[in-house]
Amino acid sequence: MSADEAPRRRRGRPKAAEAGDTRGRILTAAAQEFSRHGYEAVSLRSVARAAGVDAALVHHYFEDKAELFTQSMGLPFRPDRLVHAALAGPREDVGANLLRAALASLDRPAARTGVLGLLRTALGHEFAAELLRQFLVREVLHRVAEELDLPDGELRATLTASQLVGLVVLRYGIRAEPLAQASVEELVARVGPVLQWHLLGFPDPLDPGERPRE
Amino acid sequence: MSADEAPRRRRGRPKAAEAGDTRGRILTAAAQEFSRHGYEAVSLRSVARAAGVDAALVHHYFEDKAELFTQSMGLPFRPDRLVHAALAGPREDVGANLLRAALASLDRPAARTGVLGLLRTALGHEFAAELLRQFLVREVLHRVAEELDLPDGELRATLTASQLVGLVVLRYGIRAEPLAQASVEELVARVGPVLQWHLLGFPDPLDPGERPRE
Repeated sequence: MSADEAPRRRRGRPKAAEAGDTRGRILTAAAQEFSRHGYEAVSLRSVARAAGVDAALVHHYFEDKAELFTQSMGLPFRPDRLVHAALAGPREDVGANLLRAALASLDRPAARTGVLGLLRTALGHEFAAELLRQFLVREVLHRVAEELDLPDGELRATLTASQLVGLVVLRYGIRAEPLAQASVEELVARVGPVLQWHLLGFPDPLDPGERPRE
Repeated sequence: MSADEAPRRRRGRPKAAEAGDTRGRILTAAAQEFSRHGYEAVSLRSVARAAGVDAALVHHYFEDKAELFTQSMGLPFRPDRLVHAALAGPREDVGANLLRAALASLDRPAARTGVLGLLRTALGHEFAAELLRQFLVREVLHRVAEELDLPDGELRATLTASQLVGLVVLRYGIRAEPLAQASVEELVARVGPVLQWHLLGFPDPLDPGERPRE
């Protein structure tokens, strides 16, 4: 950490224009580093080097590598946090809570655009697919598996992702009706039990009458 | 004998080179027509006109508009037929049968490339999304809804598509492990009940022990 930049962190925010400039430079460098070397090989330190700034400055703007990645890729939310928050609640509500959190985070058009853009790139370029895979595996799927504490936790995590990703593609990408217009509550009733099943295998509200059990 | 081969047999095969040329010209014209005007507005007749061939010749090579569309878009199978075949079996096996059929049709790398390419294009271009939406709605979702004969059939059809599309994206596109390497039987056990639930709402083999009920 260089002597002239360390105090900035302690003494308060950098001036707006200067901050925007530095933050933007770090994001640009991060996007290039991730695209060139993949998720695993990049560190806050290597991004700092590429951006020509002190590592402490990267820490000043970005909490960790996952945040640097999601922001530099245009993802305006943290899938890892979303899943973590859902898993922290009651076990029988995990599916519904995860779905509510995912739909809420996709409420803003910018968030949808970011997710769909990332998916599209990953489907078209082997390296982008590898990058997304590394991020998902390290920051989301492994953690979910750990928190689930089930022997097949990683398969469960990827299957959960498959239902969520497909929902995003059909609802926000292809915009197939009536799915695109379906209310959050309707989706929680329909897809919540599926996420629950993938994650924990509870039958939960899946009974022939499709009503929650007493 | 497939229906598209019937006239060919009666009239005798065109010479290979000539046939390939004409068929290719029709496919190119179809791709352009669909991309310009959408799925609904195009007919075998309008494609014949654009290709400068007789409409009977289009019928000679392609059974119907859905086949012309899937072939010109590089989709080497018919999603509508796949769903139709699965729905024709016993109701309690619909989810498992649909999944088996979908996985079998994606067995060839060319099929995966076609599906992933179409998805990617649809995610990047509003018109491509509209084209895919029109095809899915007309040829797949409406028909599934009709065959299900349930008041919420169209929502069920789109939710079913969401799980299938997400599975394709994670397994073949992003290739997230262990999902990418999971066996067909493993997937039938995990995802079959989900398709069943989306389509018909049966709880079927979803019980706390994750074993089929007696």
